[in-house]
Order: sequence, then C-alpha cells, then structure tokens
Amino acid sequence: MTAPNPALTLDLGDRSYPLYIDSNIIASTDIYRQHISGRNVLIVSDENTAPHYLPALTEALSGYRCTHLSLPAGEAHKTLATVSSIYDQLMTDRFDRNSTLIALGGGVVGDICGFAAATYQRGVRFIQVPTTLLAQVDSSVGGKTGVNHPMGKNMIGAFHQPACVIADMQTLTTLPERELKAGLAEVIKYGLIDDPEFFSWLETNLDNLLALEPASLTQAVTRCCENKARIVASDEREKGQRALLNLGHTFGHAIENACGYGVWLHGEAIAAGMCLAAQFSVALGHLPQSSLPTIESIFSKTGLPVTPPAEMTGKQCLDLMSRDKKVRDNVLTLVLMQGIGEAFLSNDYDQNILAKTLDSAFSGSTT
Amino acid sequence: MTAPNPALTLDLGDRSYPLYIDSNIIASTDIYRQHISGRNVLIVSDENTAPHYLPALTEALSGYRCTHLSLPAGEAHKTLATVSSIYDQLMTDRFDRNSTLIALGGGVVGDICGFAAATYQRGVRFIQVPTTLLAQVDSSVGGKTGVNHPMGKNMIGAFHQPACVIADMQTLTTLPERELKAGLAEVIKYGLIDDPEFFSWLETNLDNLLALEPASLTQAVTRCCENKARIVASDEREKGQRALLNLGHTFGHAIENACGYGVWLHGEAIAAGMCLAAQFSVALGHLPQSSLPTIESIFSKTGLPVTPPAEMTGKQCLDLMSRDKKVRDNVLTLVLMQGIGEAFLSNDYDQNILAKTLDSAFSGSTT
Repeated sequence: MTAPNPALTLDLGDRSYPLYIDSNIIASTDIYRQHISGRNVLIVSDENTAPHYLPALTEALSGYRCTHLSLPAGEAHKTLATVSSIYDQLMTDRFDRNSTLIALGGGVVGDICGFAAATYQRGVRFIQVPTTLLAQVDSSVGGKTGVNHPMGKNMIGAFHQPACVIADMQTLTTLPERELKAGLAEVIKYGLIDDPEFFSWLETNLDNLLALEPASLTQAVTRCCENKARIVASDEREKGQRALLNLGHTFGHAIENACGYGVWLHGEAIAAGMCLAAQFSVALGHLPQSSLPTIESIFSKTGLPVTPPAEMTGKQCLDLMSRDKKVRDNVLTLVLMQGIGEAFLSNDYDQNILAKTLDSAFSGSTT
Repeated sequence: MTAPNPALTLDLGDRSYPLYIDSNIIASTDIYRQHISGRNVLIVSDENTAPHYLPALTEALSGYRCTHLSLPAGEAHKTLATVSSIYDQLMTDRFDRNSTLIALGGGVVGDICGFAAATYQRGVRFIQVPTTLLAQVDSSVGGKTGVNHPMGKNMIGAFHQPACVIADMQTLTTLPERELKAGLAEVIKYGLIDDPEFFSWLETNLDNLLALEPASLTQAVTRCCENKARIVASDEREKGQRALLNLGHTFGHAIENACGYGVWLHGEAIAAGMCLAAQFSVALGHLPQSSLPTIESIFSKTGLPVTPPAEMTGKQCLDLMSRDKKVRDNVLTLVLMQGIGEAFLSNDYDQNILAKTLDSAFSGSTT
C-alpha cells in the first residue's frame, strides 16, 4: 500500500510541508513513515480525544518507540505549566533532538504541543493531526504555536511549522455538535476574507456540512486550507496580509477573555466578533448596510451567536482589545470589510465610532 | 557624535547583525538608537550587574519608555519560572510586539532574556549587552537562547538572533576574578578548535588578559567573535560544524549537572571538560600525547581546573552525558582533537575506551 497523496502543499521554501485531507487516513502508517524523524515518537493528546483515536494511531506506529501523554482538555489548560508537563515527559523518556511529537486533538492540543516542539532542545519535529474542524481549517496550518498568559490569549509562543498535517474527516463524526458549529465559524471566515465564491457555496451547502457529509467536508476543509496556505506562504511571520486571518478575532479574544477561557468556545466568540467587525465596517461606511443580514444569517443558520455576551460592556471590550498582539505603539490594527469576500486591514479609523459601535452592541450589566 | 563602527558583522542574510566591541560604549545612545524598535524598552539585568551599569544605561535611553527587571543572579535561576516573571512584567506594562528587550549581564541573563524575547508574542527584538567575558566571547553571539530543565542544561530554548551585540571591555573591570578566569576558558576554546595562531598568541598574552589590559582584551574578544561568527554563519541551526563550539561542553555539562548548577562555574567545568576531551583524544590515538601538557598548562596558568570534581565517578559522568542534546538515536556526538587548533566531530569511537578514560579521570567517592 502506498501513502495517499497530499491534498495540497504549503509552500515555504525549505519549511514546505504537505496537508493530507481525506477520510480514514488517521492511522495510515505510510504517511507517518514519510514524516517521522528518528525512532522516538511522543503522541500528545487530551482526555477527550485519546479514547477515540489513540489505540489505532499507536498501532499504526508500532514500529517506533512510541509513548503518549494525555493533557487535561480545554483552553483553561493552555498554559506554560502544561507545556512544562510535556518537557518533563520528554526528559524522563530521554527523548533526543531527533524525536517527533504528534499533536492529536483540537486547536488547544496542537498549539501546546507545537510550542513544546518549538522549544524542546531548541526545536524538534512535530506532526499535526487535528481532530476538530476548527483545528483542521485553521490552527493546525501555518506554524503558529503557543499558550495563553493569564493576562492575554496566545501571548507566549513561537512560529514552528509542522512536518505535515493529517486531517481525517472521520474524526469529525465524534465531535460534539457545538464544536462542529464553532469550527464552521472559521470556515465561514475564509469566505468573508477574500473568497466570495466559497461564501456562496457555503450558503448552499451548509446543511450537508452540518450533516457531516464526507465529500462536502473534504471539499470545504480543502478550500479553507488552500486559502490559508496561500496567505501564509506570502507572509509567514504576519508582517502584513496574514493578519487578515484574524477577522473577528480581536473582538472574539476580548469576549473569550472576559468570559473566562473555555466558557465561550473560540469559534463562538469569533462568530460574534465577525458580526461586530461587520457592524463597525458599516458604521464607518466601508460595508453596505445590506451585507449585514447576509452575514448574520449564515452564522445564525449554523447555530452560532451573532451578538456578544449580555454581561459585557463596550468599555470592557475596548480595554481587553488594547492588549491585543496587533497593537503597535498604541494603535490597534483591525480587520474590516468592504464587502463579503473583501476584508482589509486598517489602523486608521475613528476611535469614537469604534467606542459607539461597541457601546450599542454590548448591552452590559444593567443592574 | 556618531555611533562607533561595529567590530564585525555576523552574516545571516536578513538576520545579520553587528557586534560592537570596544571600551566605554555601554551607554552610547547612538548605538541603541539604531537598533531599538518602537518606544518600549525593557532592560533585563540581575542583582549583580544592575548596580554597576543600570544608571548609565537608563540615562542613555531616557528618550524611550524604559522599564527594568532585575533577576536573581546565577545559573540556579535559569528556569522557566524566571522567564515567566519577564512575561508578567511585559504584560503588566502592556508591552506590544514592537518592543525591545535589552539583556544586560552575563550568559545567564542573556539566555533567559533572549528566550523571553523569542517567545513573547511569538518573538520581539532584543539586544545583547554582555558584561562578562564568557558572555562576550560566546553566549551573546549566535542566537542560542534558553533555560535549564531540572534534568538537563539548556534543554528548553529557541534560536533567536539579537538585533546587535554591545561588548564593553570596561565592564570586565568589575567582574570577580573567578569569573574572568572562567571566561578565559571559552577564549582558549577558540584556539583549540581551529585557530592555532590564536592559541600561541594566548600563551604569550595571558598575563595581559589577566591584568585586564584593554587593548589585549579587545583584541582577544574580537578574535573569538570573528571565529564564532564564521562558524555560526555557516551553520546557524547546528546541523554540523557549529557543534565544534561545544568542545569540552558535553563533559562540562555533566560536571555542572552533577555538582548542582552554579557550584562549578560553566567556564571551570568546560576547562576540565576540554582536558577530558584531550585525554580521550589521546586514548583513541587521534591526539599526540605531547599535546596534553601544552593544553593542561594554559588552563593551569589561567587558574582553571584541569581535573574533574573528586566526588564524581566515571559512570555518573557517562550517564549524565547520555542526556546531552547532541545524542541522536542513542549515539552521542563528541568534539575530539587531532591537534591544537584541529578539533573534529565524531560519533564513531570506542565506547569502552570512553568508559575507561572516564574511570581513570574520575576518582569518584572512595568511601
């Protein structure tokens, strides 16, 4: 049996790597064999994912010296302390620089494991095996790794590209419905950024995706990854256009932070965040008012929130946004829209209009 | 007043940077102005160094929003917890991605601060201001950053090149004599690796260096940095020849680890380590027996140890060496010598001869 062909390649010179996107590939020994370095393999997973896929993956890697670490699940554990538990296991097992880490799980597992791989012995190889839709279309691709600081999300991290990404549609069948929907927020994001044709396709095919129809899922994940690969290849270190991928994220991170990480799922927070970005774009006169219901409608139909949490205030949101990584010398760059599929970066907007938009969008506590 | 010219440039394409090596340049505003990005500057120092140089440096940077963090001194504090204290200060002070860290101190401060810079918001700019001889000739140059794991030295880290290095000979006048001598171990290392002419120069000029004669110091530090810059430029990520810079370090790290970090200074441990590497090279028939007294003599004259700690055993040393980062699939690459100024890498040596050499070199506890 030969290894399946990759769906696409992320082109980054000598750090280029393939993305495998298909059903029933998670235990394909042939894929792993091409991308593992050395004999030592540590699979990093979490308590939710391990029971489903670890047995098959471990068997597929029976030719290696393969160990496993299961992390506590959830964004609340995306901390330096959890990374430290990976270092401890690597040291205890005497893993050398020529070892391979495999991140088996969602975005949190991938970000933590990737950061451990970036910093263990100044960098070892790792493979992303994303098992959530969100991780498959976004966090597993592009080499952003890291953890949260108590005062801000993803504030500690590194760029470290994986050796390959293996996205198996089959894993989405065991995903809780709420997480599937949260992942669709990132899928819709690609349509909004610069792919209006894909946005239309999503409007037509949303039900197939919600019904986990494998061919539709493969098509959507591949399209998202093609878009992401193109943007990352042109701007690996986010000096410019890569920041478009943060559409809705500055607002969304503020929501996640205010509620406590994990209370709102990341996808839920950025769905509301994209609606806020759209409202602000309308208020500034960039986006036609008529686009707003189209945007809110696709999120609503997906079952995602289109308004921020009731207990937050606009001021609280602004304050949290000012800590964002995209702040440069006190100016916050935001991703705005001038149409569906026409997002752009702006650091030259009216602060008063931003404050007013947020004040009216966030009801705040009225007690 | 214009900025002094750099003594040399480390050539790494778009990550190239200048090295300033001279007396009385530590507070040269003109140098800093060329290399600081943004308005925010955090000076990271330690309790030993700050009292000597912080006032002048702070004054030189009075045009910036400049804050300071003083770390507890010593290798024992080169931990993830100390890095975390830097993140905390950066977050509390709301430092954005366009900020600059300045590492003011010895190798420990440079390694910790560099790692914080490598990983805060996935990488911010930093400047190395090494104030020990060891840091000036070795650790501040080449972009290796990181901290220790309780089970091994420098096991957690990243490659992150500084924006420039500012080595002021004047700072060596406040260095304890023991640390000056420890730094000379790294200086001598460059002669042993591939610069026999420099080794001879050192034999002649050792007294001038020990007497802190500024012109001799500048000459020695510049020569070491030229050698290091050449080796790093050819192999930034240590896939090959850069490992030559680890001459004596695998043995030395084992000594440091066995004694507890900081009991033997790094330079002292690698001096004994280079003597062990020489003895093993003789035992293998690579190095003439007659070179041994020449090598041991220059370390002795410097006031450095030429034998390992009495309480260690050869077995203990071997065991600790097997955890080294240069282990690849259970084989440890060592730096050996076939002459003074003719070091080479080897992973194909007789393990029994290694064990025997260590058994006779390490007396061990005889109780």
